[in-house]
Amino acid sequence: MSAERLQRVRNKMQELDIDALLLSMGADLPWLTGYTAMPLERLTMLVLPAEGDATLVVPRLEAPRVEPRPDIFEVRAWDETEDPVAIVAELVGGAAKSFAISDRAWVAPLLQLQASLPGSQWQPASVVTGPLRAVKEPAEIDALRRAAQAADRVAFALVNGEIELVGRAEKAVSREIGERLIEQGHQRVNFAIVGSGPNAASPHHEPGDRVIQRNEAVVCDFGGTMDGYCSDITRTVFTGDPPAEFRDLYAVLERAQAEAVGAAMAGTPAEDVDGVARRVITEGGYGPHFIHRTGHGIGLEEHEEPYLVGGNCERLELGNAFSVEPGIYIEGKWGARIEDIVVVTKYGPDSLNTVDHGLCWRD
Amino acid sequence: MSAERLQRVRNKMQELDIDALLLSMGADLPWLTGYTAMPLERLTMLVLPAEGDATLVVPRLEAPRVEPRPDIFEVRAWDETEDPVAIVAELVGGAAKSFAISDRAWVAPLLQLQASLPGSQWQPASVVTGPLRAVKEPAEIDALRRAAQAADRVAFALVNGEIELVGRAEKAVSREIGERLIEQGHQRVNFAIVGSGPNAASPHHEPGDRVIQRNEAVVCDFGGTMDGYCSDITRTVFTGDPPAEFRDLYAVLERAQAEAVGAAMAGTPAEDVDGVARRVITEGGYGPHFIHRTGHGIGLEEHEEPYLVGGNCERLELGNAFSVEPGIYIEGKWGARIEDIVVVTKYGPDSLNTVDHGLCWRD
Repeated sequence: MSAERLQRVRNKMQELDIDALLLSMGADLPWLTGYTAMPLERLTMLVLPAEGDATLVVPRLEAPRVEPRPDIFEVRAWDETEDPVAIVAELVGGAAKSFAISDRAWVAPLLQLQASLPGSQWQPASVVTGPLRAVKEPAEIDALRRAAQAADRVAFALVNGEIELVGRAEKAVSREIGERLIEQGHQRVNFAIVGSGPNAASPHHEPGDRVIQRNEAVVCDFGGTMDGYCSDITRTVFTGDPPAEFRDLYAVLERAQAEAVGAAMAGTPAEDVDGVARRVITEGGYGPHFIHRTGHGIGLEEHEEPYLVGGNCERLELGNAFSVEPGIYIEGKWGARIEDIVVVTKYGPDSLNTVDHGLCWRD
Repeated sequence: MSAERLQRVRNKMQELDIDALLLSMGADLPWLTGYTAMPLERLTMLVLPAEGDATLVVPRLEAPRVEPRPDIFEVRAWDETEDPVAIVAELVGGAAKSFAISDRAWVAPLLQLQASLPGSQWQPASVVTGPLRAVKEPAEIDALRRAAQAADRVAFALVNGEIELVGRAEKAVSREIGERLIEQGHQRVNFAIVGSGPNAASPHHEPGDRVIQRNEAVVCDFGGTMDGYCSDITRTVFTGDPPAEFRDLYAVLERAQAEAVGAAMAGTPAEDVDGVARRVITEGGYGPHFIHRTGHGIGLEEHEEPYLVGGNCERLELGNAFSVEPGIYIEGKWGARIEDIVVVTKYGPDSLNTVDHGLCWRD
């Protein structure tokens, strides 16, 4: 599997005239090698030259963590008093070359590398890996589906009232959702947003001490990592009999989400899916209240290519996986969002999340 | 508090001739503003020019998360179809200036900034913030002590046998330790290493399916974040009556850790503390088996300045807080590590962790 990915990476590097690919933090490294760098200050970096063997530069004390993959890379463990950047600079062999480095690598080692390699040209590694990682292999789609199904079981408990809302602090509900994600098979919780009442109008609200009341909207957006792949789902619950004004808002949102999912066909420009959701919401009278893009790719990382946003003219491809998550936010009052993960297949859009989208409420 | 930190930052920028400080991922931003950037691809960046007001560039959908601090910064929310890097470039006003950027910022926005600002000079922000953050204020030391005491309660349960080891998978023990860190007041678990038998020789072992046996060493190294500050402690348990060979190794290690703590006085070069631990372990005959530095600073980040490592001649200062954690690792066989967090005070080294260091074993 990885050897085949390696070949695709090499082809892309050649196409883009990149002399070496340098992978550190982020998912490019595990995608290619199976090894994840620890998110700490000691440098881990895979050096993949356009020609010749790859080398994984890794702290000596972390070398025992590395599963050897002699078909993919050699290991170069560095001691605490060595300079790992000097090792990388020597491996890439001289200045004035063209490099691509993990988008999520920390800047500190890059600044050192730039100083060591005067005249070198730098691009983010996503120019190489982004388009490759955006087209999921069948096993990756299976993994995304299993993660989505696990998240669905938590969302089902939420919309069916098994997870208590009224009278509890947002952060207590957030914690319960996180625990349930783990119980359902995730290894890690990435986020569990719970925004109630006016906080529902804050798309990335940090769950706090606010106690959830009757007769308000509660936006719950949560996801984790399961066997390497991410889940991400949003459902909105109303804690009481929703007023006509909220029913109207929600009906517009539900239509926008459904039409955007329907537009997610191979060959469609990514921005058009965003455009569909935005048109429905604008026609419904809520245009200025849809303040974010419609979605983001998902895979080993919670957000990755393709992004469904105005300006992204890239066409969707078979095997793309992304969120479709329009929202409507009325500042100071309430908000709502509906999100599913969708895969582009030859039969059309396949929604991996299947928990009911209808406005659900509690008396 | 933050206004005073801001003044110290400005003084340091002037001393180093830095035209603007750009803070994104990592702890510099919350240290200065109270706000933490979400670890996602949408750019959050505080732009602090040497003269003039600071601006927090933040995604529109995350702006409601920001607690306004008009004494520290203005907010510039950017819409999904705007280019946040162009906004930052305009705020810093032209090329060929000297900038410092968060060490942990992702490289992707830096590469864009470098392209937008030709001729600009870049340094990691730690040249400004590292020495300031390394000297903890009294309230920060209190916070570190509370986090250490919470971790101590978990370590106490470990060394006293309340946390079962034999017959359980490493990852089950790791999960229990994590749950206990939360129960004891941490908001987040940063890591919970459990390395048993031969895995005890892997300092950053990833806890796995290996079931802990009788008569082996188990290294447990764990920590989390409590009210913003980190804990980090290691204790080693032997699951049986330790053989003389392990008792000897452990006695050397215990002496090395105690002597290194004793050397942690204001004015001592950081590398000398490492040197003390290394000398004791080398004299004990285990020199080649102590394969990592003696310690790292700790505060808002799990690892920060000062680093206790050969080559770091910086002198310790009153208010420094760091781990002292020598280890001895015999590949394929066993290993041990002892770690406490220590603060440099005018009365000498103050160990925030107080759980017994002696070799503890279970029959």
